[in-house]
Amino acid sequence: MTSCNASVHRLGNHKGVAIVSRHCFHRTAIMGVTDAEFTAAKDRVGTLTQDPGNEVKLKMYALFKQVTVGKCNAPKPGAFDFVGKAKWSAWNDLGDMTKDDARQKYVDVVDDLVANDPGAQASAPAAATASQSDTAGSSVGGYENLKVSVDRGVCTIMMNRPKKKNALNRETYEEIIKALDSSGKDDSVVFSVLTGAGDFYSGGNDLNNFMSITPDTMKQAAREGGELLQRFVAAFIDFPKPLVAAVNGPAVGIPVTSLALCDVVYATDRATFHTPFSSLGQSPEACSSYLFPQIMGQAKANEVLLFGRKLTAQEAYDRGLVTEVFPDATFQQEIEKKFNEFAKLPRQSLRLSKNLIRGAEREKLHQVNKEECELLEERWTSEECIQAIMDFFASKSKL
Amino acid sequence: MTSCNASVHRLGNHKGVAIVSRHCFHRTAIMGVTDAEFTAAKDRVGTLTQDPGNEVKLKMYALFKQVTVGKCNAPKPGAFDFVGKAKWSAWNDLGDMTKDDARQKYVDVVDDLVANDPGAQASAPAAATASQSDTAGSSVGGYENLKVSVDRGVCTIMMNRPKKKNALNRETYEEIIKALDSSGKDDSVVFSVLTGAGDFYSGGNDLNNFMSITPDTMKQAAREGGELLQRFVAAFIDFPKPLVAAVNGPAVGIPVTSLALCDVVYATDRATFHTPFSSLGQSPEACSSYLFPQIMGQAKANEVLLFGRKLTAQEAYDRGLVTEVFPDATFQQEIEKKFNEFAKLPRQSLRLSKNLIRGAEREKLHQVNKEECELLEERWTSEECIQAIMDFFASKSKL
Amino acid sequence: MTSCNASVHRLGNHKGVAIVSRHCFHRTAIMGVTDAEFTAAKDRVGTLTQDPGNEVKLKMYALFKQVTVGKCNAPKPGAFDFVGKAKWSAWNDLGDMTKDDARQKYVDVVDDLVANDPGAQASAPAAATASQSDTAGSSVGGYENLKVSVDRGVCTIMMNRPKKKNALNRETYEEIIKALDSSGKDDSVVFSVLTGAGDFYSGGNDLNNFMSITPDTMKQAAREGGELLQRFVAAFIDFPKPLVAAVNGPAVGIPVTSLALCDVVYATDRATFHTPFSSLGQSPEACSSYLFPQIMGQAKANEVLLFGRKLTAQEAYDRGLVTEVFPDATFQQEIEKKFNEFAKLPRQSLRLSKNLIRGAEREKLHQVNKEECELLEERWTSEECIQAIMDFFASKSKL
Repeated sequence: MTSCNASVHRLGNHKGVAIVSRHCFHRTAIMGVTDAEFTAAKDRVGTLTQDPGNEVKLKMYALFKQVTVGKCNAPKPGAFDFVGKAKWSAWNDLGDMTKDDARQKYVDVVDDLVANDPGAQASAPAAATASQSDTAGSSVGGYENLKVSVDRGVCTIMMNRPKKKNALNRETYEEIIKALDSSGKDDSVVFSVLTGAGDFYSGGNDLNNFMSITPDTMKQAAREGGELLQRFVAAFIDFPKPLVAAVNGPAVGIPVTSLALCDVVYATDRATFHTPFSSLGQSPEACSSYLFPQIMGQAKANEVLLFGRKLTAQEAYDRGLVTEVFPDATFQQEIEKKFNEFAKLPRQSLRLSKNLIRGAEREKLHQVNKEECELLEERWTSEECIQAIMDFFASKSKL
Repeated sequence: MTSCNASVHRLGNHKGVAIVSRHCFHRTAIMGVTDAEFTAAKDRVGTLTQDPGNEVKLKMYALFKQVTVGKCNAPKPGAFDFVGKAKWSAWNDLGDMTKDDARQKYVDVVDDLVANDPGAQASAPAAATASQSDTAGSSVGGYENLKVSVDRGVCTIMMNRPKKKNALNRETYEEIIKALDSSGKDDSVVFSVLTGAGDFYSGGNDLNNFMSITPDTMKQAAREGGELLQRFVAAFIDFPKPLVAAVNGPAVGIPVTSLALCDVVYATDRATFHTPFSSLGQSPEACSSYLFPQIMGQAKANEVLLFGRKLTAQEAYDRGLVTEVFPDATFQQEIEKKFNEFAKLPRQSLRLSKNLIRGAEREKLHQVNKEECELLEERWTSEECIQAIMDFFASKSKL
Repeated sequence: MTSCNASVHRLGNHKGVAIVSRHCFHRTAIMGVTDAEFTAAKDRVGTLTQDPGNEVKLKMYALFKQVTVGKCNAPKPGAFDFVGKAKWSAWNDLGDMTKDDARQKYVDVVDDLVANDPGAQASAPAAATASQSDTAGSSVGGYENLKVSVDRGVCTIMMNRPKKKNALNRETYEEIIKALDSSGKDDSVVFSVLTGAGDFYSGGNDLNNFMSITPDTMKQAAREGGELLQRFVAAFIDFPKPLVAAVNGPAVGIPVTSLALCDVVYATDRATFHTPFSSLGQSPEACSSYLFPQIMGQAKANEVLLFGRKLTAQEAYDRGLVTEVFPDATFQQEIEKKFNEFAKLPRQSLRLSKNLIRGAEREKLHQVNKEECELLEERWTSEECIQAIMDFFASKSKL
């Protein structure tokens, strides 16, 4: 890191900084940047609090690939990979630019962004969820996308991709399956809590899951996706202890539907509940096609499942999806107080009562899960769904 | 139409009119009335806004039969046909009155009624639902008791017997089955809407359905009624697309219970929901014996199903039978806005999601439907039911 | 009764009385007391309105046994009979005290208590539920723990152990089974009402049921308890007419869960609903493991079933467990008005509709009942449950 950069960081965030910073870049550019500076720049990207816009992000993507791979050598993405093609083009357009040049330009862009972003961190970023992890007990290792900890009988499974709104990519699905399985078997755990890091509970299925799919691999990908989803939902159905959801913010898609498979659901009043299946050409999952009508009555369930009505926390409470709503300011306090009480209850009774309650519907739930996944596999390869997802990206990314 | 009548109509509705009108009749009577005048009078009856009372209605019935058939030649109605016997007697009492005399008296009665009814129309009546039909798209022919239209993906099935509070006679049951079947198969239809013309959603089973039944035909009639009901309910169970109920006013009986088979239910705040099965010696239908407890919980469902509690729109919303309630003044606007949005959703997703949701319960629903209809067939031939229906007519018609 | 005692009673309840009374005792003691005086004293205990505390109660128990049995001859109670052992010790500690001495001391204690209790009755107590029984129709005999009466088609089954908060000992379970069976078969009964005498609906399973159990008899006792419970719940499932619960006060345990098997539930606003299964090391019964999630949705049901949340009347209403809540002051009036209306409805229709509604779930309910009872049998012999019940008694009785 050059002294120039350091001074920028000390100067902090007033409007003059951007100019100093830019001026600084040009000097730095002449001097060249090291690998370490490139890595530091890459890390600082994670601390940005403002979206740089698609144009800049595409440029950064292209430069990064040029640095790490060299000249674009990837095949042009498949017909349905809308975003992929835009990224491929940006990379390809860099032509024969040298790695050094690309590295320099990359660091310049990041420095510029950081200098103009009041919330961004000057050097290596601290973990975004540091303050939350302080309150937890012993942390359980082996997770990339989750933060799992056990404290006085309570296992907290925290979806931990706050910058992605805790969206569920394939790895996160697998890790949640693993965390449920492990905490189910761990004798020190009385019950488990599912929650999210940061302001979101979870934005649901990461639609980037769809992005690597080409027409050739589509059927295979749908099969694999369906299989993964079915195992994921089965892990909820068969979880052998009480499972509590602590909905710490907005939830979209399967994080909403899977609430019906949790035993108790506490929510902050900031939470919202959105299931836009139809508008994405898809269909309900996580047994919601069976459980939501049971919970809300069909008139209210179908408005949610078919027509994608987004519920407020209060509406979700009124419809029976949520056990209790707390003001955001006291949410963590209130649920911790409850968890402390619950953890003292006779644990065999909790486990056996949970299984008695689930037992009355278990077989039916597994059957519904299977049928839902089969339909989704079909949906994912349908014209309607492909078009809807492409429209979604087009409208979102303006690419 | 004589100039006398015309002047009456121009004079309109102040208290003096009745006297002029009556005086006028006597002159008209001397002159005789034509077939056209008789037909016009008949049509004007439909524009009356005030109930003329049972005595006058019986008189008009008898005169009408005397004009169109002549001397009473019908067999005396069966023991249970309480109203039929009263009507037969009124006709029979006219004895040998000539058709001309009867026609004259009929027109006199109608003129008198119209002149005394501020809301009645002087000449040929416009369709009662004209204003509503203006907003619809292309009208679908072939229905006597419904108004069916398709507009931008939405098929509206409107029960269209507003003067009968859209009560369901046999023909209306058959036509709703047909309209559901057709709109289910029509590729241009994304979803269907069930609603009523005028101020009522529907008064339910037209109890006149029971009136032609004699002790001899009772068992056969009950069997046929049960068969029709089972097909009617099956058409709801198997409707392959979203089915929305737009409850535009009070609902009684099967129009209430069948809401549980609709996917979404919007209601005006004027709507009420009444299921007086027990007081009529009958039992629940349209799978409500199974679905109402699921929707409301058994404690609230049974109060409705067993003890006939009449629900307000708000109560029906609180109990989960209704998706949303709108003020009557903005009801049509609000639901049209929603329908426009819904119709844009990917239609295969809607259809497949609907079938997924229904699929989880379809078999059970058909079984419950069968059992409910079998019980009702038994009920319809029971002393309790016959007595309750006779009491109902007796108290209602004071005949 | 001596003149001294009589004068105490006349003097009534001001603070001076206690002293007079105590002085009086000493004189009386010298004179000895008769069997009749002992019996009268025993009866006056029932009129006490203030709890004398565990120490005094143990003393009275011991004296009573000494009078009626003589020197302690009972085997020392089993390891788990916490309360039993305390009582046994108190009795055993009296050693060779003569019956006369014990009788005298017993009467002294009671006289002292009565004199210090403003609400206690001087002589033979009237039935605690006298005022309530006045309003009933013909009383049905053969019940010790219930008050059963039939009035104009309504059979009222009143749990009648008000001093025990209408807790359910084995005999009460059996009598409720009998009363349901009888009123189900009685043609004069249109529907039955379950309610409680006094201020409580019912405190639930009488934990004294557990007190006579020793390690040797534990398995057998659990089996018998499970068998009794299964028959009890089956009597609710199969009751062939409408069954109404009139929840006249707080309810705990199975009186709460069995509400889901009643058709309609009216509650006073003083009622509360508590199901502390887990904290007692037990598990849900009366099909609540299946019906509560159906009624409330799983998120609210599990908070109640697993974590023992105590509901107010309003909360129970919001969750669908209760049909309607009335202010305590008008509760009896309101429900009687309703019952009068309901009793006029065609009774065959009520019976057949009830069975239609129950029929859709009957088989499932019996199966769930069986599984719940099997789990409870296991629970009752578990370390967790035994410990939890011993803790309960220890904290409650401070013995």
